[in-house]
Amino acid sequence: MTPTVQAILTDLIRAESVTPDAGPAIDALCGHLAPAGFTIERPVFSEPNTPDVENLFAAVGTGERHLVLAGHVDVVPTGPASAWRHPPFSAAVEDGVLYGRGAVDMKGGLAAMTAAALRFVERRGPHFGGRISFLVTGDEEGPALNGTVKLLDWAVERGERFTASIVGEPTSARELGDQVKVGRRGSYSLTLTVEGRQGHAAYPHLADNPVRGLTQILQALLAAPLDNGTDRFEPSTFEIVGLDTGNAAWNVIPGNAWARINSRYNDKWTRETLRTEIERRIREAIAGDSPTRANQPIRWRVDEEPGNADAFVTRDDALVSTLSEAITAVTGRQPELSTGGGTSDARFIKNFCPVVEFGPVGQTMHQVDERVPVAELEETARIYETFLDAFFPA
Amino acid sequence: MTPTVQAILTDLIRAESVTPDAGPAIDALCGHLAPAGFTIERPVFSEPNTPDVENLFAAVGTGERHLVLAGHVDVVPTGPASAWRHPPFSAAVEDGVLYGRGAVDMKGGLAAMTAAALRFVERRGPHFGGRISFLVTGDEEGPALNGTVKLLDWAVERGERFTASIVGEPTSARELGDQVKVGRRGSYSLTLTVEGRQGHAAYPHLADNPVRGLTQILQALLAAPLDNGTDRFEPSTFEIVGLDTGNAAWNVIPGNAWARINSRYNDKWTRETLRTEIERRIREAIAGDSPTRANQPIRWRVDEEPGNADAFVTRDDALVSTLSEAITAVTGRQPELSTGGGTSDARFIKNFCPVVEFGPVGQTMHQVDERVPVAELEETARIYETFLDAFFPA
Repeated sequence: MTPTVQAILTDLIRAESVTPDAGPAIDALCGHLAPAGFTIERPVFSEPNTPDVENLFAAVGTGERHLVLAGHVDVVPTGPASAWRHPPFSAAVEDGVLYGRGAVDMKGGLAAMTAAALRFVERRGPHFGGRISFLVTGDEEGPALNGTVKLLDWAVERGERFTASIVGEPTSARELGDQVKVGRRGSYSLTLTVEGRQGHAAYPHLADNPVRGLTQILQALLAAPLDNGTDRFEPSTFEIVGLDTGNAAWNVIPGNAWARINSRYNDKWTRETLRTEIERRIREAIAGDSPTRANQPIRWRVDEEPGNADAFVTRDDALVSTLSEAITAVTGRQPELSTGGGTSDARFIKNFCPVVEFGPVGQTMHQVDERVPVAELEETARIYETFLDAFFPA
Repeated sequence: MTPTVQAILTDLIRAESVTPDAGPAIDALCGHLAPAGFTIERPVFSEPNTPDVENLFAAVGTGERHLVLAGHVDVVPTGPASAWRHPPFSAAVEDGVLYGRGAVDMKGGLAAMTAAALRFVERRGPHFGGRISFLVTGDEEGPALNGTVKLLDWAVERGERFTASIVGEPTSARELGDQVKVGRRGSYSLTLTVEGRQGHAAYPHLADNPVRGLTQILQALLAAPLDNGTDRFEPSTFEIVGLDTGNAAWNVIPGNAWARINSRYNDKWTRETLRTEIERRIREAIAGDSPTRANQPIRWRVDEEPGNADAFVTRDDALVSTLSEAITAVTGRQPELSTGGGTSDARFIKNFCPVVEFGPVGQTMHQVDERVPVAELEETARIYETFLDAFFPA
């Protein structure tokens, strides 16, 4: 008799694991997986200037088809525990709703995946004709350097090959199954600096105020959208998130002025083509421009922030439709195939196999009183189990 | 036999008086004025949150015509004394040039005024038919709250009335007498804030990025100059000295964005008319504008910095021409009548009587190795003395 999703989730929530302290929750998860025949490996990864993080790779079965159930056990801090209706690591249930940090992001999805896999293996036995692995990190809410990205390489080096992956993030928007994620926009951050010449505000002819050129360029950059969206994506965004001149005085013309810009871009772009387009627009904005007061052309430069979240979309129709059909079978709903929202570890997995993301309703993630209805947990597990049966035909 | 300007200036420089510690230099000045028959009063003024500052009002003679010789004995800090060619409070002379903090700003002018007044009173006697006063503060380089502004009120309360004033600031640009100041531009500082709605950079439709509206308004404000100058003034300036959004994150759309703006304005404007014009331009810039993404008109506000430096120009032709003629008589030069540059205590005196500013070449003011040729000091004193003779006809 396999445990209920509620029982597994209660174990996971009570095993406090605020990022990056994943160990207790991995212990709890292994307590369910190991008895069912999963092999357990818990590699710890390191990186200068970041904490060491423990990860889990647990697998069962052999065969060509290998499904990766991916997720994380680290959770964000609770804030003042007194602000919670129930203690945040108690997994208390009130009116059929389970409260606790991680209830939806994402110990809930992970507990449902675990219950589904245990039931599947119990029914079909360990020789079901394929391989199921749990690829679980404690570094998703943190810098994301010692987690999934390294765990994938680690597994591949040991000979693992992946057919497809489901990430159990809470992708449902309002009702379980109303949305799955089949890709994500990329995120690109850059600083646009316009260089001038510092001087006294009373003598502007001796200085060159860079704000003039910066506002001119920004106006041009904001004038037209980057695109109108693609078949699977919303239009790319372009937001100026910061402005600064590094000058607190009233009588000083600043030497430099800069804008920090973040774009969430769709699959029409890569980091490289986006940068090229931004630089093209800047050059166009200042071409033929009347020179600044100092009789010099506007001097500008673009500095990129490091990033690894390029846009991607899952084009594996069989994977997407198998998941959609499982959702419809359990909930009656036809999920929207979304590429919106922020980033997740799927950005790393997509380099190894097609990946989709599906899990409970995420409305309370990162909030006080994070919670999930117990009935929703069981429904989620049934969806995953239905998917497993379809993915590994008997 | 009155002392040389060099002797007086040497006393003043050696009496270290980095703002607001005016006492030692006032002592030194009184050491020359009191023996010549000047009455001495040294009121100390206070203001919350600023240091107490000592001031000097020294006067001689009686009569309707009252000339105020105005200045300050406080000096700016020296920086590392080791960077100076000669110790900054030594008043060392090398190749006919006297070195020291305050040599031009403005113990030099003050020493020349003192020598001129002493010689004039020695020649004409204390009953020369008018009144000469020294109105000297130790709070010109500081907050300027406990100095000239209060000393003027203090003197008027005691029955003093002023006919005209010369401020001994170093107004000469390249050669002694090439420039006098007959007014100054005003300085007006304001913060323009555009209000938006904070949000996640990945979900701009849920936020309202204020940078969009701010750049649009700034572009419009920078599009046309405030004016083309007036008969006595350069065009007014309009400089954006700061930009900020109060946001250090890459994934947050800021709730507000603001620009700090400083205008040096001529006599076409007052603070009130300037604000009206800026607000008119802002309204024009956003009138009929496509609403922001959040479907709201651009919300903005203007917050003024306190200030008391309205533009003024000295329209007393007799005063200006008497000074110009004295300069031409001594140097052969025809001074330019300038209203350029930064502010001075003349902005306070102009509320009581016509005021002009004239003194040595100011090129080394506030610098390491501040210095003045000894011969220039004596020439400056001869100009002041020539002026006194013309101002108080025998």
